[in-house]
Amino acid sequence: MHISELLAHCDHTLLRPGCTWSEIGALCDEGISYGTASVCIPPCHVAAAARYLHGRLPVCTVIGFPHGSATSAVKAFEAADAVENGAQELDMVVNLSAVKDARWDAVSADIAAVRHACTGKTLKVIIETCLLTEDEKRRLCRIVSDSGAEFIKTSTGFAAGGATREDVALLRRCCDAHVRVKAAGGIASLQDARDFLALGADRLGTSRIVRLAAEAGFVPSMKK
Amino acid sequence: MHISELLAHCDHTLLRPGCTWSEIGALCDEGISYGTASVCIPPCHVAAAARYLHGRLPVCTVIGFPHGSATSAVKAFEAADAVENGAQELDMVVNLSAVKDARWDAVSADIAAVRHACTGKTLKVIIETCLLTEDEKRRLCRIVSDSGAEFIKTSTGFAAGGATREDVALLRRCCDAHVRVKAAGGIASLQDARDFLALGADRLGTSRIVRLAAEAGFVPSMKK
Repeated sequence: MHISELLAHCDHTLLRPGCTWSEIGALCDEGISYGTASVCIPPCHVAAAARYLHGRLPVCTVIGFPHGSATSAVKAFEAADAVENGAQELDMVVNLSAVKDARWDAVSADIAAVRHACTGKTLKVIIETCLLTEDEKRRLCRIVSDSGAEFIKTSTGFAAGGATREDVALLRRCCDAHVRVKAAGGIASLQDARDFLALGADRLGTSRIVRLAAEAGFVPSMKK
Repeated sequence: MHISELLAHCDHTLLRPGCTWSEIGALCDEGISYGTASVCIPPCHVAAAARYLHGRLPVCTVIGFPHGSATSAVKAFEAADAVENGAQELDMVVNLSAVKDARWDAVSADIAAVRHACTGKTLKVIIETCLLTEDEKRRLCRIVSDSGAEFIKTSTGFAAGGATREDVALLRRCCDAHVRVKAAGGIASLQDARDFLALGADRLGTSRIVRLAAEAGFVPSMKK
């Protein structure tokens, strides 16, 4: 796979607390030049980024992030607010407490509330695999498959672990075919990126891919 | 200071992603038995905890937590939602991106939006000291002093560092007298707790204090 094709699968990501507008602006410029799928940024930067990008690149943001412990009402409000501010893709974190309490109806209802609030936009459901048992992962694959979300996503990047090859393969195997897989967290090399795509991921969440592509000799387009 | 007095200054805290209802219920029981100031828990557990506690202990929760990067509209909605669910104390995280961009009006407006949404409740403003310069800390002391919030709070407990003795002393010195200081994150011993209170903290956010008190021979009350 050529690097340009690999980049087209990447959400170019900056979610560090305290990231500045100049960093987000640079991320947007890189996303355009390198042809990433989107930029993935904190909610507080969405409105300015959407104005700055003016349709040249989709804005992805995060909902109930990173702990997933906001109420469903708040996640739904946050999703609607993000859409109003110009977000086209929304990466929500499931209610991990409800998962651990095996309150599966609450887990589903939480996703449904967000799904309803961002109709027509791309919804990714982050399950934070590093905190889950095998059984919990499988159940969440079922729930996300039935939720109307476009993607299941492995990780926030802010827990103890990120995407693993095993989890990406498991999610691909256990979700219905219409659900795409986003691998995120700790993607440290172009080989990692290629491996995750080969294992069935369709999108990669990464802060490093543009630098790695540049280091590998990829020449970005000059369009802004 | 007797341990019981020390405990009365503590928000008994459990904010780990995926914490279960049985853990939160046990936290509530401990908070009552040990006479802590409150329990500090994730938003998704507030309604059930408030029903369970039924006024025996205040429920504290968190807003825009832990990154502070939700929009002001979302933080305000989350605060109103938490109050409706029974929260009496709200620990919000400032917009750290606005801090780093030196958009001080936006930082103030963000706090004001939450303050307005939880009138009559106790508002604590988390500034995440480990990410700040000395000048940013001083400016935030000024902003929080003018905001109508009851407390300034050092840390979320989810960044690289927690409360330090230097920061607690600085916050006490730089905030107006009506603003109380909450030290949180990494309080690892009863001596830490005593030191922070001696330096001017009025409240401590800690997950360990009850265990430490028990290990020191403190006998909790049997009331439930």
